[in-house]
Amino acid sequence: MNLRPLTTLTIGALVAGALATTGHAQAPVRPAATPKWLDAYREPASRLIGAAMVDNFAWQRLATLTDTIGNRLSGTPELDRAIEWATAEMKKDGLENVHTEPVTVPHWVRGRESAEIVEPAHHQIAMLGLGDSVGTPAGGIQAEAIVVRNYQELEAAGSRVRGRIVVYNVPFTDYDRTRPYRSDGPSRAAQLGALGSLVRAIGPAGLRLPHTGGLNYSANAPKIPAAAISSEDADRLQRMSDRGDRIVLRLQMEAHFDPDASSANVVGEIRGREKPDEFVVIGGHIDSWDVGAGASDDGGGIVATWEALRLMKNLGLRPRRTVRVVLWTNEENGGRGGQAYRDAHKAELAKTVMMLEADSGLFRPVSIAVTANDTARNTIRTITSLLKNIEADAVTPGGGGSDIGPSVAAGNIPAVSYEGTGDYFLLHHTNADTVDKIAPVDVSRAAAAIAVVSYVVADMPQRLGVSAE
Amino acid sequence: MNLRPLTTLTIGALVAGALATTGHAQAPVRPAATPKWLDAYREPASRLIGAAMVDNFAWQRLATLTDTIGNRLSGTPELDRAIEWATAEMKKDGLENVHTEPVTVPHWVRGRESAEIVEPAHHQIAMLGLGDSVGTPAGGIQAEAIVVRNYQELEAAGSRVRGRIVVYNVPFTDYDRTRPYRSDGPSRAAQLGALGSLVRAIGPAGLRLPHTGGLNYSANAPKIPAAAISSEDADRLQRMSDRGDRIVLRLQMEAHFDPDASSANVVGEIRGREKPDEFVVIGGHIDSWDVGAGASDDGGGIVATWEALRLMKNLGLRPRRTVRVVLWTNEENGGRGGQAYRDAHKAELAKTVMMLEADSGLFRPVSIAVTANDTARNTIRTITSLLKNIEADAVTPGGGGSDIGPSVAAGNIPAVSYEGTGDYFLLHHTNADTVDKIAPVDVSRAAAAIAVVSYVVADMPQRLGVSAE
Repeated sequence: MNLRPLTTLTIGALVAGALATTGHAQAPVRPAATPKWLDAYREPASRLIGAAMVDNFAWQRLATLTDTIGNRLSGTPELDRAIEWATAEMKKDGLENVHTEPVTVPHWVRGRESAEIVEPAHHQIAMLGLGDSVGTPAGGIQAEAIVVRNYQELEAAGSRVRGRIVVYNVPFTDYDRTRPYRSDGPSRAAQLGALGSLVRAIGPAGLRLPHTGGLNYSANAPKIPAAAISSEDADRLQRMSDRGDRIVLRLQMEAHFDPDASSANVVGEIRGREKPDEFVVIGGHIDSWDVGAGASDDGGGIVATWEALRLMKNLGLRPRRTVRVVLWTNEENGGRGGQAYRDAHKAELAKTVMMLEADSGLFRPVSIAVTANDTARNTIRTITSLLKNIEADAVTPGGGGSDIGPSVAAGNIPAVSYEGTGDYFLLHHTNADTVDKIAPVDVSRAAAAIAVVSYVVADMPQRLGVSAE
Repeated sequence: MNLRPLTTLTIGALVAGALATTGHAQAPVRPAATPKWLDAYREPASRLIGAAMVDNFAWQRLATLTDTIGNRLSGTPELDRAIEWATAEMKKDGLENVHTEPVTVPHWVRGRESAEIVEPAHHQIAMLGLGDSVGTPAGGIQAEAIVVRNYQELEAAGSRVRGRIVVYNVPFTDYDRTRPYRSDGPSRAAQLGALGSLVRAIGPAGLRLPHTGGLNYSANAPKIPAAAISSEDADRLQRMSDRGDRIVLRLQMEAHFDPDASSANVVGEIRGREKPDEFVVIGGHIDSWDVGAGASDDGGGIVATWEALRLMKNLGLRPRRTVRVVLWTNEENGGRGGQAYRDAHKAELAKTVMMLEADSGLFRPVSIAVTANDTARNTIRTITSLLKNIEADAVTPGGGGSDIGPSVAAGNIPAVSYEGTGDYFLLHHTNADTVDKIAPVDVSRAAAAIAVVSYVVADMPQRLGVSAE
């Protein structure tokens, strides 16, 4: 165990805070701004928060997953083992209707890989091939580099790109702004005749820590091998380029696709006591890239959402509607789990009152992001007032997630996400995405917050988004 | 180039500050506490500070060394190239008496190496063999692990250590307290019959970043192979041990010694105008471990001390005594450069008035550490009052360094070191010890501070440590 300093203290303070808010000896104090219907949920919320905060069960479960299975790329035995393990554990938890739903997934294989500077002086580059990249010919490719800071510089280089390996040295600002150089950069370079593409890792500058991640080849360019390199190596190449050095790189990648494989989404439920055919669906993705341990991306998300159901079960809280947890497969390189869920549950989408995804880290500060109509958003705000003392009461726009995306779009379903970005993009898709980076209290907080929001939305008389009056 | 945010601004502010202190238009203001003799040095100090702060020459030199030669372990062609390059560059700078002094050095070779968890579930460990370690047999060793947090736990394990691989999971507190587990841990484990030794990397928790470094085999135990592992992997092994898992590890290392090799200390001087046979000797070590680029350890130290002489030369400042820069070889695994210097310069030690080493990083906050009599310490304090505006005026005890150590001890010479520890131990002996971590202004500040202290000590009428009155 690797309790961060103050974690135990923090938990103590949080529990004390939660109990103070919901103290048994005193009459509940209703904040002026919250409607009367919420009062019925103060007691179950206090029990969910207390049960989540009193121990580190969820963090320990995450540690077990990431230590004894590790990372879980689509098509690997590790993902199969994780699916079997989660199914068995859900049954042990006493969740209902626990089952898997088959999904056929791609199976990309990294193989051995390396990148090095050959001229002006030999240097081994810290690299990770990009997910779904093609490999190099068996002997690798060796070519002069051209270093660019953005697409403008690439386009300006024009015909000088032909026969070169393009190095995108794009400083990280945020994920949405820099990711396109990873996903589209290889084909943009190939359109100009490049032989390979290297991209400065999409994340804050680390410690020789490349970030992998998927690419999207476009149809109108040859597929060229592509990899991420550490910020240090990108800086080094930039300095060499600025000095006018002739830079020669060598890239070797065995990356390729094996035939599609069988995989599955894992499903567990607390069946609704009055409207079992209406659903609150929550979850994250069980697959990960083939590096690190997939702890923040997305072991934490699946464990925290799953824990929400375990807490309800343990406390005997059975809401009006069904709460379902789904551990989607193949989020990282295909999204086929989310698509398969939409297709398999088409008939239920109209009766799904909310979907929630946790795939943005569990770090502080936390927010509950919502994409829904004003009524729904206000209701979520009302519910999260119960989460003030565990610092999870911020509600922001932009709720969603790649696994819930297909269903949300097809069913026009209110979309919620648990957002705790913090160090997420420092660790994202790297070998350092391990459980030691996650404080136990952060998993407990996420489980508590998700449990309270899911339980109340599943239980309240009015459907989320429909006015109570 | 990778200017950190604010670096340019910082430089501007620092230069402005330095100029304000030494402004030509105003009569110099002597702080009440400083003696009159210092006044003669305000003008040369202002010129040294201004020249150091006006550009990034020293940082660019460090970038060139680390980019185009990279790391420089004793016995490697890279160290040879660095020595040739430094000698040629010193001559170009116009330093005097530039030459090399031969040193025979050990040649440890890392070879291929790996460590993995075999049971309870396969996992590749991020590792670096410890410097001077023996290798494993060709097929590697595979054995059950025993995880301990300190020597007490090791001793308590007693006969259970036999036939195992010991994992020292010692949380990093500071270098002096945790380093013994790296240097002495292998033999302590071997005395109890261990087959191999792994140590949690000696440094703050990183991002899958092991720290290498030397070990010392004791004569009364078999030499067993030893490596450092990342903090994440040490945590993982601790958790597995805490769960009661049977842990099986596999260690493969090709580490060995090749025959001793020829190397050299690099020497350059500004000859003294009155007492050329009295010396102020400053420097750092030109060798490094075989990982990263040896930027903070100790490229920064050699470039900053060398720059002090270049600045004097460019400004036409020739002090009373000789100022000599030495780039010592083989600090990391033998210390033979420092010993050879002591032996080759035996006759000069009595006439060496101060030795200064820069081998503790150039990060802020900075201090000038001094081991000398009170008179000398007070004089250094007086001189560093000129460095207040570049935030290099703190004087602390404990000056010294492994390269100057042998001479300082033999000649009872006042020992000074430039200390800028900051992130030093996060990067120390890792693949992340690269120039991008060092702000250009920090190299300029170090060069300015070292130049001013060295120049004044070399020039002042009284010998350092002898009262002026």
